[in-house]
Amino acid sequence: MSGDLRAMAEALDRADPLAPCRMRFHLPEGEIYLDGNSLGSLPRAVPERVDQVLRGQWGRDRIAAWNRHGWIDLPQRVARRLAPLLGCADDEVAVGDSVSVNLYKLATAALRDRPDRGVVVAVEGEFPTDLYILDGICRSEGRRLLRVPAARLEEVLDSQVALLCLSHVHYRSGEVRPLASLTAAAHRAGARVLWDLSHSAGAMPVDLGEAGADLAVGCGYKYLNGGPGAPAFLYVARPLQERLRSPLQGWMGHARPFDFSPDYEPAPGMSRWLCGTPPILSLAALDAALGVFEDVDLVRVREKSLRLGRLFLDAARDLCPPLSPIGPSGDEHRGSQVAFAHPEAFAVVQALIARGVVGDFRAPDLLRFGLAPLYLRHTEVVDAAEALRQVLRHEEWRDPAFRRRGKVT
Amino acid sequence: MSGDLRAMAEALDRADPLAPCRMRFHLPEGEIYLDGNSLGSLPRAVPERVDQVLRGQWGRDRIAAWNRHGWIDLPQRVARRLAPLLGCADDEVAVGDSVSVNLYKLATAALRDRPDRGVVVAVEGEFPTDLYILDGICRSEGRRLLRVPAARLEEVLDSQVALLCLSHVHYRSGEVRPLASLTAAAHRAGARVLWDLSHSAGAMPVDLGEAGADLAVGCGYKYLNGGPGAPAFLYVARPLQERLRSPLQGWMGHARPFDFSPDYEPAPGMSRWLCGTPPILSLAALDAALGVFEDVDLVRVREKSLRLGRLFLDAARDLCPPLSPIGPSGDEHRGSQVAFAHPEAFAVVQALIARGVVGDFRAPDLLRFGLAPLYLRHTEVVDAAEALRQVLRHEEWRDPAFRRRGKVT
Repeated sequence: MSGDLRAMAEALDRADPLAPCRMRFHLPEGEIYLDGNSLGSLPRAVPERVDQVLRGQWGRDRIAAWNRHGWIDLPQRVARRLAPLLGCADDEVAVGDSVSVNLYKLATAALRDRPDRGVVVAVEGEFPTDLYILDGICRSEGRRLLRVPAARLEEVLDSQVALLCLSHVHYRSGEVRPLASLTAAAHRAGARVLWDLSHSAGAMPVDLGEAGADLAVGCGYKYLNGGPGAPAFLYVARPLQERLRSPLQGWMGHARPFDFSPDYEPAPGMSRWLCGTPPILSLAALDAALGVFEDVDLVRVREKSLRLGRLFLDAARDLCPPLSPIGPSGDEHRGSQVAFAHPEAFAVVQALIARGVVGDFRAPDLLRFGLAPLYLRHTEVVDAAEALRQVLRHEEWRDPAFRRRGKVT
Repeated sequence: MSGDLRAMAEALDRADPLAPCRMRFHLPEGEIYLDGNSLGSLPRAVPERVDQVLRGQWGRDRIAAWNRHGWIDLPQRVARRLAPLLGCADDEVAVGDSVSVNLYKLATAALRDRPDRGVVVAVEGEFPTDLYILDGICRSEGRRLLRVPAARLEEVLDSQVALLCLSHVHYRSGEVRPLASLTAAAHRAGARVLWDLSHSAGAMPVDLGEAGADLAVGCGYKYLNGGPGAPAFLYVARPLQERLRSPLQGWMGHARPFDFSPDYEPAPGMSRWLCGTPPILSLAALDAALGVFEDVDLVRVREKSLRLGRLFLDAARDLCPPLSPIGPSGDEHRGSQVAFAHPEAFAVVQALIARGVVGDFRAPDLLRFGLAPLYLRHTEVVDAAEALRQVLRHEEWRDPAFRRRGKVT
């Protein structure tokens, strides 16, 4: 490794305007964590908040806590904290369920609003749950799911397409898809767009409003640090809110849930996208986690993310044997991650973990390194690249212990 | 109040085989809690377990915690704890999402398996979310939702009925519906049955297996004490498991989720009913809460529940003005609650709360008192009935402070 890069990284750490954010997280000593795009780190505010909900609210006030501690409005309060991260209005976001369930709600509603168009377009190699959910919907709604390479998206958008559904940042390549221009292209074809923001929300500014986006979903436990299986979010642009109807008509989406009326009447605004009773513990954890972002400028987050990515790629340039980065070459098209292909990617990831560098493996052959700008140091990515160099140079991944697979990596 | 009843209650408390269970809960001093059928009390094991998941697992091991601390199998482990409470096999239960979402999955799957039958039967006055969810499904699947009085159920079961969906214990009247005989009646008509066990699971033995039940869902936060918005459960009898297909094809229901295959293949067994990433904090809380039941005999729970109900009704027999109990007169047909109608039920509940007795109001006119046998004392229900007597005799409910309604009661 070039000592110059290490020195540059040290200087960047000293000048980092986001450096104070690191203190807001519990970070284990001696581990370089490059997997914040899979599961974000634990914000310090979370355990205290959850304990307060358990002992101070549930334990003390039981049923009265729904009003006394505002549990009943908690989904809406979390939505208000999310809106600025998504570039939309407070009343265009709802929080609850999982990404998969939310995708199901929105895609189903969008298709039923467009009975005249038979095609749903998705990108080949999209995150599997998105493809699985869309496949299920297309089967039951009698539509065709067309999976095309990202480069061919614009050419397939025609008058048969009801919905385009894709990730803003791709989970493997890290490619950032152009939110505004693809939305505009879909609209020119008369189609609607559903964006999956799981790999962008919290890592860069997202401007759903300016892009004129129709629909979006996203994950609470990656760059938003809401904890394992945190509630997800969904976005519906105002003009569509009264028009679309959730297939999941749960009581929390009713206009007056506590009237116990026998007939369903969707709530006005975003509350109609709620379904069952919200999971208060997980919601409170996500709420506390989002507090980390309160004084954070996402433009600074994006700048740091790009610096971290560029540093990693520069430091990994002369690996031996060399590894080719996967994904876009221009910095501006790269999300907050870098990735490489390696035939023994699983074992390489294990060998890195043994060196205290946590990246992740994505089948069949991908080494993926997520760069969470709120708690990652520039020096850490240079040190991670150096660890990768050692693992490759000494073929540490050949150790049989690193080649045995567990269930999840 | 008769001093005899109070003395009898004291004797029953002294002889109560479940008395030691009370120590397993955090119970606020000076409050008689008769709302455990809406939100169960906080088990002592929960805060410690959740803190362990937060600081000891997520905070320390981050992504590695999925394997190292068994998060990936947590839904299955919680399912194994639930199975004995439901009278079914370990591999007939799945845990996750909400009651509403699970009802949607099962009812949709059941209808799609029976395209030849056009009717879904539900009970008039059923818990609203069940009716709302069924209404949504019937609209999109082109079926008719027939809501009939409970007494007319058997007569409407004919060759047009695809599915009968009803609560085992009704949330208002507390009536226990006969699991085995109604299941048999539906089967005779060639229909399937989906039971909602929200108001019975944890309060009495439920024997899905012996009843030959097809499908069931239920709630984690009532008698199971899993906390506000706890994950729900669902049951599918073995013969139906390979036959039915969830409309919500999320990645956690895939046969090999971490292969990232582009095509959906439902997992064998119950895992196909999982959908998105499971909410680990809430699941861990539910898991710890279910630990309370480990050495508990549900026959004893039911016996105590019936004693508590009988005591309450006896102690409330000579109220002035008198109140008529709602629901079944025979003890064996009553779930773990008693209820009364009163035109000012809302204000009566508030006046009782001011006296330290927490029951609940269900619109428009119901006073409902849940009896959670694991932590309720016999003396408490006698004292609660006495508080009710005072509230009615002195018309304490006329106080304007008790008549102002908040959002939830």
